[in-house]
Amino acid sequence: MANYMKHIKPIDLNEGTLRLLNLGETIVISATDGKETDAMAAAWCCNLDMNPTKLTVVLDKTHKTREILERQPKGEFIIQIPNVKTAPVAFALGSVSAHDDPDKLEHCGAKFFDPEGLGRPFLKGCNAWIVCRLIPEPQNQKKYDLFIGEAVAAWADDRVFDGRHWHFRKAGRAWRTIHYVQGGRFYMIGRGFDL
Amino acid sequence: MANYMKHIKPIDLNEGTLRLLNLGETIVISATDGKETDAMAAAWCCNLDMNPTKLTVVLDKTHKTREILERQPKGEFIIQIPNVKTAPVAFALGSVSAHDDPDKLEHCGAKFFDPEGLGRPFLKGCNAWIVCRLIPEPQNQKKYDLFIGEAVAAWADDRVFDGRHWHFRKAGRAWRTIHYVQGGRFYMIGRGFDL
Repeated sequence: MANYMKHIKPIDLNEGTLRLLNLGETIVISATDGKETDAMAAAWCCNLDMNPTKLTVVLDKTHKTREILERQPKGEFIIQIPNVKTAPVAFALGSVSAHDDPDKLEHCGAKFFDPEGLGRPFLKGCNAWIVCRLIPEPQNQKKYDLFIGEAVAAWADDRVFDGRHWHFRKAGRAWRTIHYVQGGRFYMIGRGFDL
Repeated sequence: MANYMKHIKPIDLNEGTLRLLNLGETIVISATDGKETDAMAAAWCCNLDMNPTKLTVVLDKTHKTREILERQPKGEFIIQIPNVKTAPVAFALGSVSAHDDPDKLEHCGAKFFDPEGLGRPFLKGCNAWIVCRLIPEPQNQKKYDLFIGEAVAAWADDRVFDGRHWHFRKAGRAWRTIHYVQGGRFYMIGRGFDL
C-alpha cells in the first residue's frame, strides 16, 4: 500500500456517505473513459436519498467532464470533497474548460490516485471520495443539466472524517470544507454545535 | 411598515438569490393553502439554475408541508435561510410532524410574518426568504421526492446579506448559516476567503 493511502479508509455507504455531503460543500466531480479524464468543481451537488445514498449534481453542457460521463458505458463518476488546502485546485478546475486547454488537469495542479487499481481518478488532497453510478434520467439531464448518481463506494481521510463524524477542530483549518459563493469568494465550514 | 421589516429588503432575483443558496446551508420550507400552514427543515436543498434562479428541494412524503404544497393551486412555497439564532426552531420544525402534533408550529416556537400582505408564511428571525413556484415534474416528485421551484421573489435581512454579499463577520455568530450533519449535530459557516 502506498504511503499516501495510510489514512484513506473505505466508509459505510449509507449513514457515512450521507453525512459527507450534508454540509452542502462545494465538490469536484471527475470521470474517465480510460482515454480521457476530466474533473470540474461544482457548487450544486446535494444528497437525494439514503440507504442507498443517492445524490444530484448539476453539470453544465460546456464541460468535458459531462461529455465523458455521458459517453462512458458504466456511467461512473467520482464526487470528491476538497478542503481549504485543495481549494486553489478545485477553483481552477471550475474555471478552466478542457475544451479550451487540453492540458487543463496539469495546469490546474490536479493529481490523481487510484486506491483500488480500477482506473478511477481520485483527486489527491481531498477529504473524501464517493464513487457513483449514473441513474439515467434523460429528461432531467437534458432539460435541467441535472444528474442523479447512486453511491457504490466511498472513502475518506480518517484525519478529518472517521466514517461517522467530522473532526475539523482536531484536523485544523486546512481540512475545512469549502462553500463557494461566486467570483473566487468562498467560506470555509466553521464551528460545530449540538442541539 | 412594521419595525420588524426595517432591515428586510427585496433582493435581485438572479445573482443575489443564487448566492443565498450557494453555501449549501440547511433551509426551512413553508407552505400554506390559506387554511393550513406548515414548515419543515430540509438539509437537501440546492441551486439548479440561474437567470431565473431555480432550485431543488427533497421533501419526504411523511411531511404535511409537502401535502399542502402539492394540493395548493399556485404551487407556492417559501425557502428561508435560518441561522445559529433560529437553529433550535429549524431543528424542531424538522423533528416534529404536523400529522402527529396539530400545534406543531406553536410548539416549535415558529413565528411568521407577511411582508407584502399576500398571506405568505415567512419564518421570523431568518437571514433570507425565497418565494418559489413549483415547476411540476410529477415523475421526480413521485420517484425521488424531488421538487423543482423557480424563484419569484426574494428578501434578505440587510444586517447579514446586502443583496450581493454575505456579511457574517460584521453580523456576528448568531447570523451564521447552519449546516446539518445528523442527530442534532450542526456546523455553522466559518471564515470567508478569496482565491
